[in-house]
Amino acid sequence: MGIEIEQPSVGLSKVANSDTHGEDSPYFAGWKAYDENPYHEITNPSGVIQMGLAENQVSFDLLEKYLEENSEACSWGKGVQAMASFMEKIRGGRAKFDPSRIVLTAGATAANELLTFILADPGDALLIPTPYYPGFDRDLRWRTGVKIVPIHCNSSNNFQITPEALEAAYNEAESMNVKVKGVLITNPSNPLGATIQRSVLGEILDFVTRKNIHLVSDEIYSGSVFSSSEFVSIAEILEEQNYKNSERVHIVYSLSKDLGLPGFRVGTIYSYNDKVVTTARRMSSFTLISSQTQHLLATMLSDEKFTDNYIKTNRARLQKRYEMIISGLKKSGIECLKGNAGLFCWMNLSPLLEKPTREGELKLWDSILGEMKLNISPGSSCHCSEPGWFRVCFANMSEHTLEVALKRIHSFVDQRDRKTTTTNY
Amino acid sequence: MGIEIEQPSVGLSKVANSDTHGEDSPYFAGWKAYDENPYHEITNPSGVIQMGLAENQVSFDLLEKYLEENSEACSWGKGVQAMASFMEKIRGGRAKFDPSRIVLTAGATAANELLTFILADPGDALLIPTPYYPGFDRDLRWRTGVKIVPIHCNSSNNFQITPEALEAAYNEAESMNVKVKGVLITNPSNPLGATIQRSVLGEILDFVTRKNIHLVSDEIYSGSVFSSSEFVSIAEILEEQNYKNSERVHIVYSLSKDLGLPGFRVGTIYSYNDKVVTTARRMSSFTLISSQTQHLLATMLSDEKFTDNYIKTNRARLQKRYEMIISGLKKSGIECLKGNAGLFCWMNLSPLLEKPTREGELKLWDSILGEMKLNISPGSSCHCSEPGWFRVCFANMSEHTLEVALKRIHSFVDQRDRKTTTTNY
Repeated sequence: MGIEIEQPSVGLSKVANSDTHGEDSPYFAGWKAYDENPYHEITNPSGVIQMGLAENQVSFDLLEKYLEENSEACSWGKGVQAMASFMEKIRGGRAKFDPSRIVLTAGATAANELLTFILADPGDALLIPTPYYPGFDRDLRWRTGVKIVPIHCNSSNNFQITPEALEAAYNEAESMNVKVKGVLITNPSNPLGATIQRSVLGEILDFVTRKNIHLVSDEIYSGSVFSSSEFVSIAEILEEQNYKNSERVHIVYSLSKDLGLPGFRVGTIYSYNDKVVTTARRMSSFTLISSQTQHLLATMLSDEKFTDNYIKTNRARLQKRYEMIISGLKKSGIECLKGNAGLFCWMNLSPLLEKPTREGELKLWDSILGEMKLNISPGSSCHCSEPGWFRVCFANMSEHTLEVALKRIHSFVDQRDRKTTTTNY
Repeated sequence: MGIEIEQPSVGLSKVANSDTHGEDSPYFAGWKAYDENPYHEITNPSGVIQMGLAENQVSFDLLEKYLEENSEACSWGKGVQAMASFMEKIRGGRAKFDPSRIVLTAGATAANELLTFILADPGDALLIPTPYYPGFDRDLRWRTGVKIVPIHCNSSNNFQITPEALEAAYNEAESMNVKVKGVLITNPSNPLGATIQRSVLGEILDFVTRKNIHLVSDEIYSGSVFSSSEFVSIAEILEEQNYKNSERVHIVYSLSKDLGLPGFRVGTIYSYNDKVVTTARRMSSFTLISSQTQHLLATMLSDEKFTDNYIKTNRARLQKRYEMIISGLKKSGIECLKGNAGLFCWMNLSPLLEKPTREGELKLWDSILGEMKLNISPGSSCHCSEPGWFRVCFANMSEHTLEVALKRIHSFVDQRDRKTTTTNY
């Protein structure tokens, strides 16, 4: 067996050793706490309730029967067409999608990484408005070596993106000698649970055009807007402008959120740039979707009657859930940002903070997880610059579990109120 | 719409603009020629026959019925166990696999890229014996920035890897100031269609241990060996050595070839290194398998009666096909490397070359595609250093189509023989 010498253990790459995977954050720690002690109505009623998972289970009954009855094949050529039609439908028919510009990937996670590989080189940056989905720190940075520079938004204008904030982020990157290659927005926003206004989209498009950089619009919650009229897709703006400057715009979509099928891993890139489409198609070899799943979804999406009913019912159920959590929180004196989309609300617990700092926020989060046994996501894990905000998911559980969660919040706030009037921390 | 100035078109990344995707080779050009004019027994009998596609269609009838009857769910925990058992079964029970070391990816393409990201940094190299699968130029290099340094093998010893060839490749990398991070072997070899001998595996393991680098063993054709006794997995060697030095060894497997289900995108990494397992699991977020497909395959692989029969029947059919093509080629005076595995044979057409060069080989390939209308892969696309070798796939078509292909080869060689005796090029 060759020459035996004492040697160091065999090394791994910088990618493997880097912390850019971003999993050492409260966002993931909360998930772990849930995994170790999950709530169950009967067997573990004091367990952790998972409110940190943006998954849609409110309409699964509508899908279940369909999945059972329709497992036969259907060509996926038809499926890309069906995906384009579905994307038009959830935008109220106000935008057109050309099936030949659709590139499929195994989920939106892969779609976002793939676009980052295509648009930016290692060391370059994307500007992203805060608060943003914690997974971006991994998805966009880990293997690509690309940086994220935050566009700081705050509660003074309901966390809307402004031209000043865009310019400030761009200048910050420049001052660090980092090349900005694009802006990535999530519309409707995760974690805000709100859509981006038409005028703001115009300003963002203006900005990326002026700087000659890209715009990625992650629209994976576009079908989860409570009323379709409240959502403006970047595709709609481009159509109004006769596709001027559209070669810098790329849309990410997925069926994971709107259809509540995260396990199916069906993501898509829609790019108005021919070279991006070609390159993305090549690169999708690393992240293809099972043909079995493609066939099933092609059949499902082609069924207009089914999709019409699904979208309508799902919107109504999400809105109902949203109103249920908002009014429940209000009873505990808790306010949320006004939302109109998504599977979560953006909850303001800043009045409960002992200190208005990131540490104060994490201390409160720790109590919420440890005492209330609710897993929610602290704003700081979303890079929110204002302490005290939390993302609470409401669509991944039954109404009954949501009621249990609201009761726990109520008694926690009650107890806090009594404590703070008698003790000083 | 902001300030309108003349500006250059918006740029893409080096990854997007690089040719490392490797699709500008005869390997892919041949595929394109097939796509444009595909052979059909009745509607296009003079069309291009696809012999450049290593796909297994000889046992699809065995699967078809199963897929129809078993679409119900089964937990994938059981599935990873089933995958481990299946991997043991195709190795004749001479190696054990721990389910907790299995990481699933959407196909072997993703598995190989993922391992490269984990084992090497941009600019580092992997040593790979030639001839090798042309897709590696894309899969291992494009997004990772890692280099491939060839280990040159040749016909003098039936393209077996030698310690001298390993050392020479290592030295070549060093002389270019490139850090070698590992050796990647394909066993059974694609394109050779032959397994690597036990003694050679020992020498390779010796070499990587001495150099303190990694060994990736791509064993995606391990179930397609005509007789299980002829295949020695690196897992078997490690077991014999009580897993000494195993932390540097990683196996890639997939169901695409052995089960003939490439569209299902089920690849797997099996690593003996804990940190690689953890990192690969994290990184697999970019390339997850549809849960629907996981469930179906978990059920399928757990069915011992089905898998036993499948493996046995598939081996026998592949061997029959292999013998059919070998004897058919022999009638045209063409010899192949002695094979015992895979979906292809390694054909020696060097006697037909006008000039014993890469150009001569590509000229012949051009005639084969243009006149014979057969898409086969030239050795040069596999980085073979000896001109005149070609990979011919035989399992992705019916026996009848294979007969048509053999007839075309026969008349082509006949015509050539007549030509070369009358004219001088």
